[in-house]
Amino acid sequence: MRMYDISVGISPEMPIWPGDPPIVIERVREIVKGDNANVSRLECGVHVGTHVDAPIHFIDGSSSVETIPLRVLIGRAYVVHLPNATVINETTLEGSGIPPRTRRILFRTSNSNYWAQGERRFKKDFVAIDASGATWLVRKNVQLVGIDYLSVAPFEASIETHRILLENGVVVVEGLDLSEVSQGRYKIYCLPLKIIGSDGAPARTILVGV
Amino acid sequence: MRMYDISVGISPEMPIWPGDPPIVIERVREIVKGDNANVSRLECGVHVGTHVDAPIHFIDGSSSVETIPLRVLIGRAYVVHLPNATVINETTLEGSGIPPRTRRILFRTSNSNYWAQGERRFKKDFVAIDASGATWLVRKNVQLVGIDYLSVAPFEASIETHRILLENGVVVVEGLDLSEVSQGRYKIYCLPLKIIGSDGAPARTILVGV
Repeated sequence: MRMYDISVGISPEMPIWPGDPPIVIERVREIVKGDNANVSRLECGVHVGTHVDAPIHFIDGSSSVETIPLRVLIGRAYVVHLPNATVINETTLEGSGIPPRTRRILFRTSNSNYWAQGERRFKKDFVAIDASGATWLVRKNVQLVGIDYLSVAPFEASIETHRILLENGVVVVEGLDLSEVSQGRYKIYCLPLKIIGSDGAPARTILVGV
Repeated sequence: MRMYDISVGISPEMPIWPGDPPIVIERVREIVKGDNANVSRLECGVHVGTHVDAPIHFIDGSSSVETIPLRVLIGRAYVVHLPNATVINETTLEGSGIPPRTRRILFRTSNSNYWAQGERRFKKDFVAIDASGATWLVRKNVQLVGIDYLSVAPFEASIETHRILLENGVVVVEGLDLSEVSQGRYKIYCLPLKIIGSDGAPARTILVGV
């Protein structure tokens, strides 16, 4: 059983969405200063690194992250490799060879190179899903969509893609590092922190070979 | 395949270790105020709620949380129910009926009632593992130990239990809610946030029936 860690490491140096809260990781107790233990604190936006979006991220009055069902976050998934795509739209998806009845799809694009290269700056030109692509995914009854940069939606068009997916109950996983994963079938375990009432949560996420 | 979420919800009202950083969850962007999306930030100690301890929590110069192997965090586990124990020591363990060659053990004690009841105050009299119990677990080659309160060690004797376990490479999972889980065999998926260099990390954790 081969396991792949597709989560990015959380550190103050990683890229974050422009305007999101900065990441702070600092020791507040230290053995060398006479404390019993080393203890750190964390400060970050809930959409940091590999994370899940809840419907309430884009739709007021809708559900928060702790209500996302484990039965969607865990299960069979298909990784599709689109090395040349600049956008993921209906045409891209029609030609992508995703097997019928796939319920969880993870998109490996050129974005994964940013993680593999340790790029620290936020990149606006990442590959993302446009409204036609989101509509296609909903029509195919996809339940979970994962992307290898910090948003499923193009930088200048956040709202539409997110709303189409989240209004239709599609779970959105962002900030995956798929650079070490080949196209094909896996089992995904995506486990977001159970932050009560939150619009998102960082989620350690792994794939298991099937 | 039945799944059990054994993670506690993270909220500002939950009990935290005395002196640990407070939990703050707040909206920093809001649709009603004209922002594109609702976005929250999180502030907490890394040993909040259901979490994993890294060796460097108690041993200077040792390894941090992102290096804990997935192969230990995931795999067969045994939940042992000790409803009457006030401490988990060598005698408790000898009489507990844990199957031979168990590599991951989760202790369900009366602590789990605190989570089930929504107790908000930190309780000092929680059931924990003393040094004789920790030594027993190491001798039996246990690789992962889980407990249903915020420390594996008694409140007034943190250091010894932690050091015995962490020095011997045992992964320590704390803050589990086992109130809904019967004694027996499961598969555990414990996925801590990959916080680079950290002495611990919150970890959404589930059990799957086998």
